[in-house]
Parts: sequence; structure tokens; C-alpha cells
Amino acid sequence: MPPVTSDAQGKRTPPRGITRGKPGPPRQSQAREGGAQTGQGRPPGAWHPATMCELYSKQDTLALRGKHIGPSCKVFFASDPIKIVRAQRQYMFDENGEQYLDCINNVAHVGHCHPEVVKAALKQMELLNTNSRFLHDNIVEYAKRLSATLPEKLSVCYFTNSGSEANDLALRLAQQFTGHQDVITLDHAYHGHLSSLIEISPYKFLKGKDVKKEFVHVAPTPDTYRGKYREDHEDPARAYADEVKKIIEDAQSSGRMYAGNPVSCAVGLAVLDVIENEDLQENATRVGNFLTELLKKQKAKHTLIGDIRGIGLFIGIDLVKDHQKRTPATAEAQHIIYKMKEKRVLLSADGPHRNVLKIKPPMCFTEEDAKFMVHQLDGILTVLEEATGTKTESVTSENTPCETKMLKEAHVELLRDSTTNSKENPSRKRNGMYTDTHSLLSKRLKT
Amino acid sequence: MPPVTSDAQGKRTPPRGITRGKPGPPRQSQAREGGAQTGQGRPPGAWHPATMCELYSKQDTLALRGKHIGPSCKVFFASDPIKIVRAQRQYMFDENGEQYLDCINNVAHVGHCHPEVVKAALKQMELLNTNSRFLHDNIVEYAKRLSATLPEKLSVCYFTNSGSEANDLALRLAQQFTGHQDVITLDHAYHGHLSSLIEISPYKFLKGKDVKKEFVHVAPTPDTYRGKYREDHEDPARAYADEVKKIIEDAQSSGRMYAGNPVSCAVGLAVLDVIENEDLQENATRVGNFLTELLKKQKAKHTLIGDIRGIGLFIGIDLVKDHQKRTPATAEAQHIIYKMKEKRVLLSADGPHRNVLKIKPPMCFTEEDAKFMVHQLDGILTVLEEATGTKTESVTSENTPCETKMLKEAHVELLRDSTTNSKENPSRKRNGMYTDTHSLLSKRLKT
Repeated sequence: MPPVTSDAQGKRTPPRGITRGKPGPPRQSQAREGGAQTGQGRPPGAWHPATMCELYSKQDTLALRGKHIGPSCKVFFASDPIKIVRAQRQYMFDENGEQYLDCINNVAHVGHCHPEVVKAALKQMELLNTNSRFLHDNIVEYAKRLSATLPEKLSVCYFTNSGSEANDLALRLAQQFTGHQDVITLDHAYHGHLSSLIEISPYKFLKGKDVKKEFVHVAPTPDTYRGKYREDHEDPARAYADEVKKIIEDAQSSGRMYAGNPVSCAVGLAVLDVIENEDLQENATRVGNFLTELLKKQKAKHTLIGDIRGIGLFIGIDLVKDHQKRTPATAEAQHIIYKMKEKRVLLSADGPHRNVLKIKPPMCFTEEDAKFMVHQLDGILTVLEEATGTKTESVTSENTPCETKMLKEAHVELLRDSTTNSKENPSRKRNGMYTDTHSLLSKRLKT
Repeated sequence: MPPVTSDAQGKRTPPRGITRGKPGPPRQSQAREGGAQTGQGRPPGAWHPATMCELYSKQDTLALRGKHIGPSCKVFFASDPIKIVRAQRQYMFDENGEQYLDCINNVAHVGHCHPEVVKAALKQMELLNTNSRFLHDNIVEYAKRLSATLPEKLSVCYFTNSGSEANDLALRLAQQFTGHQDVITLDHAYHGHLSSLIEISPYKFLKGKDVKKEFVHVAPTPDTYRGKYREDHEDPARAYADEVKKIIEDAQSSGRMYAGNPVSCAVGLAVLDVIENEDLQENATRVGNFLTELLKKQKAKHTLIGDIRGIGLFIGIDLVKDHQKRTPATAEAQHIIYKMKEKRVLLSADGPHRNVLKIKPPMCFTEEDAKFMVHQLDGILTVLEEATGTKTESVTSENTPCETKMLKEAHVELLRDSTTNSKENPSRKRNGMYTDTHSLLSKRLKT
């Protein structure tokens, strides 16, 4: 069994069970890894993965997936999927040892395969893993520590097996407490993959075959960039709130068991420890602000960027074909995430128009990572704008997004087919990595 | 980090990180453990847990649970809960090192904390754990191996986070495929804890506040012991099938993402390996048949046992107050599971009347365990029957359950209060470990 061991410096030695290849040639990523270590004591990519044995070739994995896994379980980058065999911190590695900067897996909250988290899981797995119907210290300790991070009134926990299960339970609690079934949901919202949540997820019932149930009420998304009330409105917050108030007035006139097991709670406790010990909240604020500033400079440089918004490391880059009309640049967003993948950066596109590049990396993301990511984005945007004749040089100030000098006609012409194509399959609208519009655009651009 | 290591004999050495106490005095359980090793190469309880540090005393754990965990998350043996700190194979250990024979946790399918399963989890956790949107060998290999155990037509897998999520998805697939919403469900059925499943779980909507939805149709449970059509019916199978047919005729006239991650698939593959390598299916058949035979002898001896039924190691012991009327012995079942707990055997009571002792242990359960369990049950039933004046000596043959000589009046009198009491809280009906009828009965019996 490959153990994780630590020397006095907390440096991680590789699992014994895995063949250690010779160090590869210096790669650009090595420099970034060096930068990423500061204050973290955990060098990523300390051993080379290229020599790790695969069970199947990538083609065979893909074929077996087609045969045995339900087609609704989509892969990222459907027209050219990645096979990931290893990950550490904010880096993922494919079967050839290629390193990708991970800007999308915020679920790996404190970084992929954090040794403290793995250690806590192992220690508990060896002792006991069972349901929450026996008394156990881990569940109460985890609940206590989670509660301590929340307002005093929120002191009782229900552990569930997924975010969807949590939302389903929240719905039931609310319906039990109020005695009403009515739900107000935001337009385009996604609340989970269960029957009860699909019912209240407009992205699903507005685009698919499902119909809106009578008890579901849809309020406009409070989006001041492209929504119903924008930043030129005198009080957009009140305007959006009034929409909800009106829905309430109109409407008025008319249990989980294996979750919370000792292992998952031990893992949760280790994650809380790592967040504290590595000061990851401060890191998210600092690196997030740094990244937002870098992106704002990009916005001033590239006419495709219409808006930068977000909090901490959760950031959206809203791409537009026309600053005044704020026309979503959907095909461009698809093109960019595939091109970023070639540059070894994992990004996704989201939003009702799938034109918003979404950044939500593990919280150990560094300023070096931010610089690398923005550098690659800059290059791709530059090539894209040159190819489509929309190159602009600081034509738009940060606060006057409407002063675009984009060469609209050429651009619109070039992308017309791909945009049409992207409307064909509404079920593929979410997370934006599944369309094949990329290949069409790529052919035209030949970048 | 405490690794799991194996010597040539496959003997497990304890994790280094945990204090190893001196071996305790020989206990009865040691003999059983010896018997349990045959052909398995994995001695349980190799180190003594009494010296392991607890974070909180049992009382503090209980108090914190009351404060921070939602009350709908019930504990086993509510009036006297157990704190379990460690488990191996079919044994669980409390904070004092007391060993319990586990007859209820079939989720720990190949035995608690199986070192091969732990090893597989650790190996994968150190490498990569992420969602199923990247290509990975584990998900396709696990799907392939699961499919190989199923009929050829069943070759496509959807991985979910829980049995409830699986049932919700199955419902959606069926409704999508048929274009109909109607569902036929068996009376008393429990299908999961999600909104969509509570709707089709009669145990919930018949007993609680929820009302049956129009699209839900309830068919009688095909129970030939206490159901609508019994073993004296000329063709009970057809009779139950006809009920379903009639419902169909009446009705006609009127996707998941983090599940299937590399770690859970590695664990699943290790479980399949252990089942094969340790021949656990054969074990379940052999030990299950052995246990059923032992229990049938108990049925001949104890008038409280009305029926023994089940397949393999999933066995029910139907307790009755009256063989002819088959009156459920609900309070007795509660009493027995608490008494079995005192004898260090974990059992539960289930069924619409909570009078069926339910056995569903890990699959590594041995003949020694079966003997021990039946021996304890025999002792408890003997004392119970003596105390209530219902002692019988082989008065009922296995096939003539109606010839009881039970002293009905005394028995009924004694248990009247507890039975009434057990009806008070319908929400506690499931899994039968939550009522306090035990203490009332215990006081009377003073056993």
C-alpha cells in the first residue's frame, strides 16, 4: 500500500506503489509550480506521471464509456475529451503527464489530493465508516465547527449525500414549515438533478420538454449587465426586489442517513483545518482581487470582454459581440475554452447564453496561476480578434463599455453559422463544454 | 500517516498512529473471532480499542448531537444509544472496547474496514478524485465489471450519490420513456428520502401528514404469511399479480455528476474483487441456509416466532402473539432487540408492524456468528416466555404454526400498554429502534 509520508519540512514523498519516472525536461509549468509553493509547503507534481500505467488507452476508455455509461453523463470538451489520471493542488495531469491549470474544480476546495485530507480519510477508513445512527464524535465535531462559521441562529446540521439532496431537503423543510408549496426561483437557475429540483430549475423547464408547474414562480435574475434592470437604472436592487414582492403578493392571493458518516466528517474536519492552517480564505480574497484587476486590464484591451464580475476566486468574464447591445459571444466563448485547454488551462463557459467564462478554481490558486491564465487568455483573444478583424487597442475604458469600435459586420458574418448551430440543442446549454461549435469556428479561424 | 501493511500471511498490522493497548483478557468473542478467520486471512480485533482516545465522553457526544444534528436523524436504540468507535469484519466496538456482532449493516458489504477496500481507496485518493466529466479508467472498468454480473441487456450504468438518487433517476427515466407519470408501489414500501420518493412510499403517506397523490397506485404486499392472500390460497402469486394487473387496467382507462468519481469506483472495484476472492456469495448462501435452519429449530421451540423467511443472509423472524391470528408481537420485538444489544448482538425490527427481526449482516458473517446470535436469541426468548407465562416446548411443528398453546390472556394483558404506546408515533415506525416501549416492557419483566 502506498502511504503518504512527511519529512520534517512537510515535503511529500511519492506513494511507493507507483512507478517513479525519470524527471522530465524542465517545463514551463515547473516555474509556476515553484511560485505556487510559497507558504504552502507542498510542491505539486513532485513525481512524473507519464510512466504510470493506464488500464486502457484513451481511445478504449472513450469506447467503453460509450458502451457502459449513460449518455446523459457528459464529458468536458466533448469533441476532444481529456483523460485525467492525477491531480495535485490546482493542477491536473493527463495520461501523457501534461499539466493543466485547473480553473473549474472548486469542489476540490483546498486543492486536489491534499495530503492532510487524504491522511484524515485513511485514518478514519481504517477505524470505522458507518451510518449516522450510532453515536460518533466526528459528526458532532464537524457540525459544531461548521456552525461556528455561521451566524448563531444557524446551529443545526443535516448531512446529505449531495448538493441536490440538500436542496431537496431544504424544499421539504420550507414546505413543511410554511404549509405552502409555492417556490420562487430565479430565471436560468439550476438547483440540482433530482425531480423536485428540475421542477424549480427554469434552465430545464424553459428549454426542454418539461413544463412549468403552477406552484413555481420565476423571478428575473438580478443581472445588472444584461438583465431586466441594468446599471443605468436608478435603483436596480429595489427594482429586482419589487419583482419578487409582486410574485409573493400574487401567490398569496391565489428526512437521510448514510451521509454524515465518520469518514466524510473526518474529511470535512481536515478540510476546515487546511482552510485555517493555510489561510485559504485570505488567499482567495487576495488572489481573487489580483486576478480581477488583471482581467479588468484585459477588458480595456479586448473588445470581446464586456464585463468582469465575481467575488473572491469565483469570477465571470462576460464575452460580447457588441458592447452596446451586449450581444452574447457564445461561439467565441466555446472557441476560447477549447483554445485554453490547448494551452493547458481548464475553463468553462456558463450562463443562459453560455458566453460567460467561469473561473472557480481550488482555493490554493496563486497569483502565478492567475498571471499564467490571463497571459494565455490574452494571447487567444488577440489571435481571435485579429482573425475576425475586431482588434482594438484600449478603445474601451473600463467604465464606458459602450464605446466599442468593433468591426461588427465581419465578425457577425464569420460567426453566424456557429451561433445558429449552438441553438440547436438546448439540453446542452449548461456548462457549455459539450457543443461542437468549437470545431466549426476553429476551421474558419485556423488558429 | 498510518499505513496498512500486510505480511506474507496477509495478517494485518495496526496503524502506527493509534495507541496499541495491552491485549485484554480472553473474551468469549475471541473464540468466535478464531472461528471467523477460516479462509479469510484477516483476524478481527487484532488490537485493543479501549485505549483509543475519544474526543468527547459519550454523554457529551449525545449532548452535542442534540444541539447540532437535526432531530429527524435518529440514532439506533434511542433510549440507550451506542457509541461505536471502531469496526472490523462483522464486529463493531464501542468506546469501552466492547464487541458487538453486527447483524444489521449490510452496507458494509464485505465487512467493516476491509483492508483491500481501504487500500484501494487510499491509492486512488492520493492520485485523483474528481467528477465524471473527465475520462477515467475506473468508471468504465467498474461499469464493465458491474455489467458482467447482470443480464446482457443491462449494460449501461448511471452512477449516483445514494440509493435515493438512483430511485429518483429510475423514476424519471421510466416517466420519460413511457410518457406517463403513474407509479404502482407496494403497500408499506420505502423507496428513499427524497420528495419524489416519499410520494411513492406508502409507509410515509399512509401514516403521516402527506396525502397520496393521484398518480400513485398502491398494490398489496405479496406477503403469504400476513398479507391479503396467504399460503392457504390456491395460487397466491397469481392473486397478487392480478391485483397489479387490475391497477394497470384502471390507470390506463383514466441525469448526476460527482457520483462515479475515481475513488468511489476504485472502492467499488475492490469490493467486487473481495466478493470474488473471498467467495462471499457462496458464504452468504451457505451461512444463510445454516442460520435459517437454526432459526427454524428456534421456531419449533418458541411460540413467539411465527415465521422465518428470507434469502441468503437477508432473513426475517416474524414475531407473533398468536399463531392463528398472526397478531404482530411489536413490543416483544422491541424488547428483544434491546436485550440482544445487551448481549452484544445488533439486530433491528422492521415491517409495517415492526415485529419482524431483521438480519442483514456484512457478507463475511460466519456459522460461528450464526450460532452465537441464535444462542443469545434463544436465551432471551426463553426468559421472555417464562416471564410472560407463554413458555412452550416444541408445541408447534414447523408446518403447523396454528397449533399454539400460548397462554394468550396473560400475555396480552402484560403487553397491552406497550403495544398501545408503540402506535402513538407513526413517524417512528421505520426500522423500529426508536421507541421507548422497551423500557416499559423491561420494567414489567425485570429481566
